[in-house]
Amino acid sequence: MKAFEFYAPTDHIFGEGVVDQIGERLAAAGWKKALIVYGQGSVVKSGLLDKVKGKLDAAGVAYVDLGGVRPNPEVGLVREGIEKVRAEGCDCILAVGGGSAIDCAKAIGFGVPYEGDVWDFFCGKAKITDCLPIAVVLTIPATGSEASGSCVISNDEVKAKNGAAGDIFRPKLAFLDPTLTFTLPPYQTAAGATDIISHVCERFFSGVGEVPISDLISTGIVRTVIDATPIVLEEPENYDARANIVWAGTLAHNDISGCGRSMNPAARAGGWESHALEHAISAYEPEITHGAGLAVVMPAWMRYVWREDPQRFLLFGYEVFGIEPLEEGDEGYESEEQAIEWAVEATIDELAAFFQEIGMPATLGDFGITAENLDEICDIVADAKGEEFGGFKKLNRADVKAIFESCL
Amino acid sequence: MKAFEFYAPTDHIFGEGVVDQIGERLAAAGWKKALIVYGQGSVVKSGLLDKVKGKLDAAGVAYVDLGGVRPNPEVGLVREGIEKVRAEGCDCILAVGGGSAIDCAKAIGFGVPYEGDVWDFFCGKAKITDCLPIAVVLTIPATGSEASGSCVISNDEVKAKNGAAGDIFRPKLAFLDPTLTFTLPPYQTAAGATDIISHVCERFFSGVGEVPISDLISTGIVRTVIDATPIVLEEPENYDARANIVWAGTLAHNDISGCGRSMNPAARAGGWESHALEHAISAYEPEITHGAGLAVVMPAWMRYVWREDPQRFLLFGYEVFGIEPLEEGDEGYESEEQAIEWAVEATIDELAAFFQEIGMPATLGDFGITAENLDEICDIVADAKGEEFGGFKKLNRADVKAIFESCL
Repeated sequence: MKAFEFYAPTDHIFGEGVVDQIGERLAAAGWKKALIVYGQGSVVKSGLLDKVKGKLDAAGVAYVDLGGVRPNPEVGLVREGIEKVRAEGCDCILAVGGGSAIDCAKAIGFGVPYEGDVWDFFCGKAKITDCLPIAVVLTIPATGSEASGSCVISNDEVKAKNGAAGDIFRPKLAFLDPTLTFTLPPYQTAAGATDIISHVCERFFSGVGEVPISDLISTGIVRTVIDATPIVLEEPENYDARANIVWAGTLAHNDISGCGRSMNPAARAGGWESHALEHAISAYEPEITHGAGLAVVMPAWMRYVWREDPQRFLLFGYEVFGIEPLEEGDEGYESEEQAIEWAVEATIDELAAFFQEIGMPATLGDFGITAENLDEICDIVADAKGEEFGGFKKLNRADVKAIFESCL
Repeated sequence: MKAFEFYAPTDHIFGEGVVDQIGERLAAAGWKKALIVYGQGSVVKSGLLDKVKGKLDAAGVAYVDLGGVRPNPEVGLVREGIEKVRAEGCDCILAVGGGSAIDCAKAIGFGVPYEGDVWDFFCGKAKITDCLPIAVVLTIPATGSEASGSCVISNDEVKAKNGAAGDIFRPKLAFLDPTLTFTLPPYQTAAGATDIISHVCERFFSGVGEVPISDLISTGIVRTVIDATPIVLEEPENYDARANIVWAGTLAHNDISGCGRSMNPAARAGGWESHALEHAISAYEPEITHGAGLAVVMPAWMRYVWREDPQRFLLFGYEVFGIEPLEEGDEGYESEEQAIEWAVEATIDELAAFFQEIGMPATLGDFGITAENLDEICDIVADAKGEEFGGFKKLNRADVKAIFESCL
């Protein structure tokens, strides 16, 4: 078990109707004027935005709007938000939506007290040391951004989708009402579930051996999502299943599942290989939903790397799917090596099959990406991650290309 | 899944040697003078206290001492600590030790800003609204007090051992170094493991049905402790096993395992029946180690109440011990009722056997408590909990007496 620091000071307010508390809670925190950040209008159509504003009005908390955040939020809108906060004198940022709105809100939050350009934080030029307080009303369980110290922003000009990390911009308040996810379309629901599972897997397959306490928390989160997702696809208004997914999504990325796995106590556990691969394909093609991209690249990455530490995959397969390797004397048993390979491949097959069952794509071709596009996508990976990256197995450009080729 | 609020803003600094950071961390938090609270001298003998003081000296953080906290800390020493903080102008409390030192530190922390007597908070006369910041160097994984919003204090004069709850007094900083637990004697190690398991069980058997995400986190914590404890009893310096127990102990009581189980979002999940029973016996006989008392009363409570919701016990038995009820056609199967009873009893037997294997007592007689003492102990329960209490099954005085009688 490696040394770690775990500091997740988000106040999670969970349950049906918790948005009713938003005015009083922001006022109690002493915040006077919020920049409300939201996406492409679903929170307008649903009436949620008006409801939030009504509660702020009633509590005497002022606000201004910044709508139009797109999936894979772009740094241009972040810059606009920063100017707006400065011009309007906001003292907090309130995201209403999913990971895109939240990440945009975070980047505005730490961009405001910084004199330079906010992209500096995403390309290693500056370190985040201050941030306005962030509050979140979550509508999409997926990115875990509602309680994480992660923020991912795209820059179309340089075709990049990069992340920043820090406990300092974890949201102070997260309002988690499962009923707000009832209207989430099946594709977004499934992409969210995939993203949640990936956040656990990136940490679980981190290149550090067993950490029983974190291993069992991790596989518990994955099992919960695998059990609950088909239920909500059948019954979108199943409160308990939606609630389990929402909470699993928060815990999958608030670092609790990675404790003891990081080589560097100040850094997040894991090599985040699947995320690096996915960020490149959705930087190349910004219309790709992050979770859908992950459903394609994560099993391919797993098939490419599992031999580095088969035991990790055997544990995952056993705890999540009940898969056990054949033993000597079992029908079909040939050798220990074959038994392990069979069990690991069966585990990855089960995971990939689950993604397809819930409606996720299986190949890069499903996004219109062909062999001709791969060099450019590999360039994006190299720009973001350097010549070599990865925790479970170091990946160079040839490895990255081989993984992408395996999912054409 | 019930509504809940989860706010656990402790900064956990985990790993070998983390105490080296204590001076710089307290200084960085802006704290100038600490009251150091510790127990019966083991941290003096081990040199830990001197080490902590050396680090505070180096960082320019002043301090004064309050030693001598006993197991089941008494309100008299809390009052003394409050006076000392006021006289010395301390701005934070630093506990060095286990749950007794930490709970004493917490009670001092919220006693200082209150004008009345601190016992008021433990008998329902006052509500905690303010607290000095608390930091902890943990030496005993057991109570989870290093990150919990719980504080239990005894009052010998009125023969009571009562609790207070609130996020406001959760420690700000917790230094968790597994090597500090290497020298913990077997009995304390085992009592700590029992306490950790009980914190999960009190929430798991809370009278609310399935919450898959929290259920699997709960059983994962219990499995971790059941696997790791025999290892550390054999090899007291097994770092990984000690580390897993330390982190399990923190997570068992920081409320993460109870999310979605409480009927009241502001209150801790569970009826805390076993704790109420144990608090009475260790209020009656303050030499009883809390975990040892729990090892006796918890299985007895389980046998008395399981019929209220057998499914909870079947899930626990399956996830923790791999126990499944017999099915029709299996050898020995008589009826569904018998199959369930067999599986539940086997689960409780396994848990009780585990406690005994690690050296915990099995009967009240092991503490010298006899049938003649039970009325007085039942009085203590009634004083603390009223005529009836419990989440899983309501317990009145006759129930309480029957449970105690079953473990004579």
